[in-house]
Amino acid sequence: MSQPDNTQPDMIAIDWGTTNCRASLLAADGTELDTRRAPEGAGGLKASEFEAVFERLVAGWPDLPVWICGMAGSRQGWLEAPYLSCPAKLSDLGSQISRIETKSGRIVRLVPGLLYRDARDNCDIMRGEETQIAGLLARQDDFSGLAILPGTHSKWVDIQDGKVNRFQTFLTGELYSLLATASILRHSVSAHSSDIAPDDPAFLAGLSDVISGRVPLVSGLFQIRTQDVLNGASKEDSAARLSGLMIGGEFAAAKSSGWLDTVEDCYIIGGRGLTPLYAKACELVELESKSLFGLDASTQGLWYFAHQQKLAAD
Amino acid sequence: MSQPDNTQPDMIAIDWGTTNCRASLLAADGTELDTRRAPEGAGGLKASEFEAVFERLVAGWPDLPVWICGMAGSRQGWLEAPYLSCPAKLSDLGSQISRIETKSGRIVRLVPGLLYRDARDNCDIMRGEETQIAGLLARQDDFSGLAILPGTHSKWVDIQDGKVNRFQTFLTGELYSLLATASILRHSVSAHSSDIAPDDPAFLAGLSDVISGRVPLVSGLFQIRTQDVLNGASKEDSAARLSGLMIGGEFAAAKSSGWLDTVEDCYIIGGRGLTPLYAKACELVELESKSLFGLDASTQGLWYFAHQQKLAAD
Repeated sequence: MSQPDNTQPDMIAIDWGTTNCRASLLAADGTELDTRRAPEGAGGLKASEFEAVFERLVAGWPDLPVWICGMAGSRQGWLEAPYLSCPAKLSDLGSQISRIETKSGRIVRLVPGLLYRDARDNCDIMRGEETQIAGLLARQDDFSGLAILPGTHSKWVDIQDGKVNRFQTFLTGELYSLLATASILRHSVSAHSSDIAPDDPAFLAGLSDVISGRVPLVSGLFQIRTQDVLNGASKEDSAARLSGLMIGGEFAAAKSSGWLDTVEDCYIIGGRGLTPLYAKACELVELESKSLFGLDASTQGLWYFAHQQKLAAD
Repeated sequence: MSQPDNTQPDMIAIDWGTTNCRASLLAADGTELDTRRAPEGAGGLKASEFEAVFERLVAGWPDLPVWICGMAGSRQGWLEAPYLSCPAKLSDLGSQISRIETKSGRIVRLVPGLLYRDARDNCDIMRGEETQIAGLLARQDDFSGLAILPGTHSKWVDIQDGKVNRFQTFLTGELYSLLATASILRHSVSAHSSDIAPDDPAFLAGLSDVISGRVPLVSGLFQIRTQDVLNGASKEDSAARLSGLMIGGEFAAAKSSGWLDTVEDCYIIGGRGLTPLYAKACELVELESKSLFGLDASTQGLWYFAHQQKLAAD
């Protein structure tokens, strides 16, 4: 195997989620050479519409292997890449792709999501997050420990030696957004939650109230309204407290599901707004955590899948 | 005091909530002689608009004392009837009303809501439910025990000898409705939840999964989606399971707040759809419960306030 040239394009990595789409041109070592975005999320496209969006997105880029993760590979996406069952070795995941040849002759690989079925036959699914986790393995391919992926549907993931053993989804982000925009709390909470600081006292109080069990989540929510009605709490404080309650609720639920029993190592993989808030929650349950930026992790994960396939082919 | 004539109108009782309004003409012993409804809920009216709606509603009825409970007495209502602090003796509540004389000369009494402040200075409020509880006292004025009032904002209320000592609000109904209509679960859940039977297996499974602690609420929610995506669960089953999870979440939270520690007697006061579901949840935590229909309780509660004032004046 010759030394890779880190200035020459080698593959195209696309994170195609429900609401947006980002494509990166990568060198053989994973270096990002160029990045483009398309506003067309997979959620708004019919299967027949993906190809035209894709061709516009990569127009002018060389004809290289294309790897796509996210909802573009769901049943309602471009082409279904069926879920793989856990335990799933992520270095093998690149051999389980769904393959499309476009009219222009480009070869597109869609990465599968993961499925976890527990002893009581309850199922959980992820699509897109498996690639962010692979981005973590791209840095440390024998990683064992916990990965937390905050978001609309937060995931807690148990990884042992590069294998995803088990995961669990929490509706935290979606509930936050419904409560802040469509519930009685919308009158009391500011719309912008992205600038909550991890050391905001209202955030910290909400977080520790729920994690400690002093305040049950579903009852703490209504108190945000009463603090506004009776004591004129500011909309910023209320948003910070709501965020603390919701993240606290996720950690309390994860704790009750045994996620905090024995953790070797913990990574938080997510956006720049939520990651510091989750890191603070980790501190509160005495869990040391490191952070990884989600979009970078996703690009590196697609590179990891492609790279592992090359190694297997060598 | 002469024997009351149970065919002669003696007072007008109005339950004026956020979204609807119901007026009853009552005899001196509380017998309902006539009932009318207005579509104008307090939530859609300015203070200046209440009087015209009221006059239309009672037109033709004799000029008798009018007692109103619900959001018409809130700060955004007709006239504020400020919250009374707990512990609050409900038989005294009729002396704490806000009074209006309309242009036509009718005397209207607006009943206050209740406020509970815990040792950590967290506040909780109710407005309307205090009157439903008074409806329970109208039957049994030395009642001691627990009243559960299911609804958009469910209340758990500790009553000792006709006094409200403490209460706690859970956002159960509002969360259910947001999840069923505006979240990712809307694709999986049928819109009509009013016909869920208390012995529906999906309802019971959801209920016991959360009450037992096997499934944390915020994580069980996502499984409703996966059961649809992977196993094609029916929308009716999913709605029943969602209802079970949410009511289970309320009971688990109430349990963790000590509500089930020592209960002498338990009443569920609510609508005909939810009350049997809550009764089933009571069974599961080995709590015997009796039920009272909410609208009847409300009318009887207003009668109780008026009656207690008469007794005090005698």
